[in-house]
Amino acid sequence: MAGNPFFEREARPHVEGDFARDELALAYRNSALPLEALAYDVTPLGLHYTLSHFDVPRLDEASFRLAVGGRVARPLALALDELRGLPARTVRVTMECAGNGRGLMRPRYPSMPWLHEGVGTAEWTGTPLRHVLERAGLASGVADVAFLGADRGFDRGVEHDYGRSLAAAEALGEDVLLAYAMNGAPLAPQHGFPLRLVVPGWFGMASVKWLTRIEVLDRPFDGFQQAIGYHYRKHAGDPGVPITHAKVKSLVAPPGIPDWYTRRRLVERGTVRLHGRAWSGAGVAIARVEVAIDGDWREAAVDPQRDRFAWQAWRYDWDAAPGEHELACRATDAQGATQPLAPDWNTNGMGNNAVQRVQVTVR
Amino acid sequence: MAGNPFFEREARPHVEGDFARDELALAYRNSALPLEALAYDVTPLGLHYTLSHFDVPRLDEASFRLAVGGRVARPLALALDELRGLPARTVRVTMECAGNGRGLMRPRYPSMPWLHEGVGTAEWTGTPLRHVLERAGLASGVADVAFLGADRGFDRGVEHDYGRSLAAAEALGEDVLLAYAMNGAPLAPQHGFPLRLVVPGWFGMASVKWLTRIEVLDRPFDGFQQAIGYHYRKHAGDPGVPITHAKVKSLVAPPGIPDWYTRRRLVERGTVRLHGRAWSGAGVAIARVEVAIDGDWREAAVDPQRDRFAWQAWRYDWDAAPGEHELACRATDAQGATQPLAPDWNTNGMGNNAVQRVQVTVR
Repeated sequence: MAGNPFFEREARPHVEGDFARDELALAYRNSALPLEALAYDVTPLGLHYTLSHFDVPRLDEASFRLAVGGRVARPLALALDELRGLPARTVRVTMECAGNGRGLMRPRYPSMPWLHEGVGTAEWTGTPLRHVLERAGLASGVADVAFLGADRGFDRGVEHDYGRSLAAAEALGEDVLLAYAMNGAPLAPQHGFPLRLVVPGWFGMASVKWLTRIEVLDRPFDGFQQAIGYHYRKHAGDPGVPITHAKVKSLVAPPGIPDWYTRRRLVERGTVRLHGRAWSGAGVAIARVEVAIDGDWREAAVDPQRDRFAWQAWRYDWDAAPGEHELACRATDAQGATQPLAPDWNTNGMGNNAVQRVQVTVR
Repeated sequence: MAGNPFFEREARPHVEGDFARDELALAYRNSALPLEALAYDVTPLGLHYTLSHFDVPRLDEASFRLAVGGRVARPLALALDELRGLPARTVRVTMECAGNGRGLMRPRYPSMPWLHEGVGTAEWTGTPLRHVLERAGLASGVADVAFLGADRGFDRGVEHDYGRSLAAAEALGEDVLLAYAMNGAPLAPQHGFPLRLVVPGWFGMASVKWLTRIEVLDRPFDGFQQAIGYHYRKHAGDPGVPITHAKVKSLVAPPGIPDWYTRRRLVERGTVRLHGRAWSGAGVAIARVEVAIDGDWREAAVDPQRDRFAWQAWRYDWDAAPGEHELACRATDAQGATQPLAPDWNTNGMGNNAVQRVQVTVR
């Protein structure tokens, strides 16, 4: 590694083809959803994706305090028991990494090289953030509410605690949670123990883990991950568009059995039930899922939306004939947004919701 | 992808440099230990490594039966409740993938390209296997006991259920468990729900997950993963040496804070407590850990062995001076086995226990 990465202030050059050791090492630092786990309504712990920018901090629950400061009437320092004493709410949320699919873009930005696996669904329990903000008392003229984690490191030469913000109106929404439990158990270290933010409908970067500080601001939050990271940019120098909600997407659980190394699938001839999940952002329901067999699109059956922010199951019974086949799936949401056939390229490889393709051999 | 991988019967050619998409996709299918999690005596769920050859099966606990057959007096079909009714035992076990470190060998065999992360420590609860074998009644002249999982796929053109075996004497050892719980909870799907074998002191491939069949044999088990996979081989055509116990090894938790992409570390000058874990195979204790600062080896403090099959913590207080430094650690076990400075190369990249090196910048 030439140069000092702490002063790597420029964007890394785009690449094609094989993956650098730095990209592989990032893949190991984070959990991924093996696609057969699309079978679960709620993703079991350890199969839900994680994306941690820096090291996973080890925090002590007894001494933990959530600090709330800035433009508030009453600064707070809340212990976990105090947060647990506030009204509790459980929300089932499909969360996806904004960088999911980055490894499939060409050329590719060297970063976490997700293929399809940066997603999962969990039941988060906590108190709506608004209870804490109301207790602190927002001053007039508040613009942003910033959320800062205990995880610290460098990105593009900038040392910072991981931090993101929401506009005040968004932060007061009933489904934005200060979550202390996932799937009915205390948060695992890698999911933000003891406390995290959960912002349903947004890509995962908004849901700050190891949340230790809330700063109420009368100006836009200028932290690295808000002002520089997490934008859709079409070229160097493009000020870009901030990334917010997840995009419409679907995945199929590859049918049959795999080859160990290539993961190529072998499927028995006859009726094969294809199944998977589909979701969109901002609580918009999925209206339609189509499946393509060798490029021929057919209608799949989709479960109705049961939880506003959770994925919907879909299925299609395929009459599989011997030979080589390519499967694909495509979701369309209730607002008519649909998945593109090829990635919508942007400089940092964000928000790739192109249709997934799976090669199978039927015998 | 050229050719039909189901008939890929030859070993793949060795490679150097960047990693193929197939290698990256395997990395995503398995969990890895982020090295800061070396701080935990028992690895939290989701941070313990996994290595699944094929898809993670979804098994139903109510209808699950463990079949015991072959050279036994009384074939059995045991429900999970029957297994839970047998004498229970909990064993703390450090388990490492035999392929851990494969991605650091040169040239490299294209397979799961572990760097350092294929390890973890868990508390497994189950019944010693011998209770079930004794209930079934081993015939005379038994050679091997084979263990078959519910996971099925291809490797090098051979379709098979994942399976491994132990010599009968080994299988009757008190610490070989039929485990139904990990860290006090039912097994997670990716760790073998509802039942797995745990063979302490061996590399992980022996601890068959989703265990559904035990076959007692009067001949050596000839399954793919026993007879072809998991051997140390020095060249093509080498019959090789079967892989059994883990090798002596140590890891250090990288100090300081990271750069997002390169994971290069920044450390504050002054006293820095370096810490990590060390373990060996077959229950042999770690006698010594050394730390190298820029190639100068010093003695670290090592905790005594508390659990025969679990890693031991070590620490070293480093007086860090500003500049660039390379850290390394090396364990030696009570039988005098120690880690090599460079990998002991073999065709499939197995058992790499070379010393880990970490680059840091002190400011």
